[in-house]
Amino acid sequence: MIKIVFLRHGQSVYNLENRFTGWTDADLSEQGKQEARRAGEILRSNGYAFDSSHCSLLTRAIRTLWIVLDEMGQLWIPVSKSWMLNERHYGALQGLNKAETARKFGDEQVKLWRRSVSVRPPALSPDDPRCERLDPRYRGIESSVPLTENLDDTGERVLRYWQETISPELRQGRKLIVSAHGNTLRALVRYLDRLPEDGVVDLNIPTGVPLVYELDEELRPLRHYYLAGEGAMPDGE
Amino acid sequence: MIKIVFLRHGQSVYNLENRFTGWTDADLSEQGKQEARRAGEILRSNGYAFDSSHCSLLTRAIRTLWIVLDEMGQLWIPVSKSWMLNERHYGALQGLNKAETARKFGDEQVKLWRRSVSVRPPALSPDDPRCERLDPRYRGIESSVPLTENLDDTGERVLRYWQETISPELRQGRKLIVSAHGNTLRALVRYLDRLPEDGVVDLNIPTGVPLVYELDEELRPLRHYYLAGEGAMPDGE
Repeated sequence: MIKIVFLRHGQSVYNLENRFTGWTDADLSEQGKQEARRAGEILRSNGYAFDSSHCSLLTRAIRTLWIVLDEMGQLWIPVSKSWMLNERHYGALQGLNKAETARKFGDEQVKLWRRSVSVRPPALSPDDPRCERLDPRYRGIESSVPLTENLDDTGERVLRYWQETISPELRQGRKLIVSAHGNTLRALVRYLDRLPEDGVVDLNIPTGVPLVYELDEELRPLRHYYLAGEGAMPDGE
Repeated sequence: MIKIVFLRHGQSVYNLENRFTGWTDADLSEQGKQEARRAGEILRSNGYAFDSSHCSLLTRAIRTLWIVLDEMGQLWIPVSKSWMLNERHYGALQGLNKAETARKFGDEQVKLWRRSVSVRPPALSPDDPRCERLDPRYRGIESSVPLTENLDDTGERVLRYWQETISPELRQGRKLIVSAHGNTLRALVRYLDRLPEDGVVDLNIPTGVPLVYELDEELRPLRHYYLAGEGAMPDGE
């Protein structure tokens, strides 16, 4: 039986400040680090061990994975880092305070930007100092770096990574952990469970709680559950 | 001009206990972690930035690299981990107290085991619980895991990694850091500087001090120096 563990990083300093984050490289807060340690302890105490791991190019997901592997005594496994697992790009909203943005544009507009699969927030200008095309971590792949994304854009690149990189490893029988973000993990779950568009809007994956998917040989989900506390907690959703 | 930085990990808990370490996965001591932080600060304040990195499969070298990249704000660069950068395998001496071993076998014998390029310490038995062939980190490459090594054995695999993996990256113009161990870095330095066998016996690379090699297009060394404190300190050796 094939197993993969998804982990959403914990609180970042931008969450604390109530800002739109997206591709902004906000680090974990102290609480976020603690969430990661707890996730590592839970995985270890449940007897998990990984052959390999995947995360985004953003510090908060990388550090979450590192803390988990450290807690598990597994610093030595390969870690693949990819922009395709990055959080959804939030365009020109990145770095803005969420409450201020709602006052300026109205709650309805902000809700549309956040939850619609097809509406994109205003794009970042390529000259904007916030634009990641200037960031050395994306050197050589500048043309792939979006200026804004809707949820479908995000899902498309995440599923490409799933097909091209994660699936072949799973088929080889490798036990994997993926440390990523709310919208990228939601896209994977939507794909795996074949959820309709309106089934995913309210799907909120909790931070710092390992989400286990058991898959058959065709990588179709058999069941999934969160690991919390002493043992496996059934998914209430 | 091509540049590569070598870094020897700092103090481990086995150093503290005066034991032969080799492939034993002893972690960094608090002092070792501090040495790594200092190395990261020095690299950052000297304006270094890396495209990619290499380390052994041993926690003390991986953690050293991680701390350095964290200090530099470069957690996102690729990290390649290989057994070929592991410390020299110390055979059945691994884990033994150095002073006790000297009392048991005599100073001369121990010196020979430590410093001779051709003499190997007694081999570990494949059934010995210390034997790394049982360790999941070497799964799939069990037949490459040595039971003991002399310095030439170590040098051979390190140079293979240099030729097959590091050199091609350097030729692409990538700026690299290698976090490794006393004997593996000594083998690289010996090769790069074409030192004779007796020129390397007393070559002691300090822990936690970035050693920079500048190379020409053929990867022949132009000069090398340690980065310490405020700026570059010329190598006194």
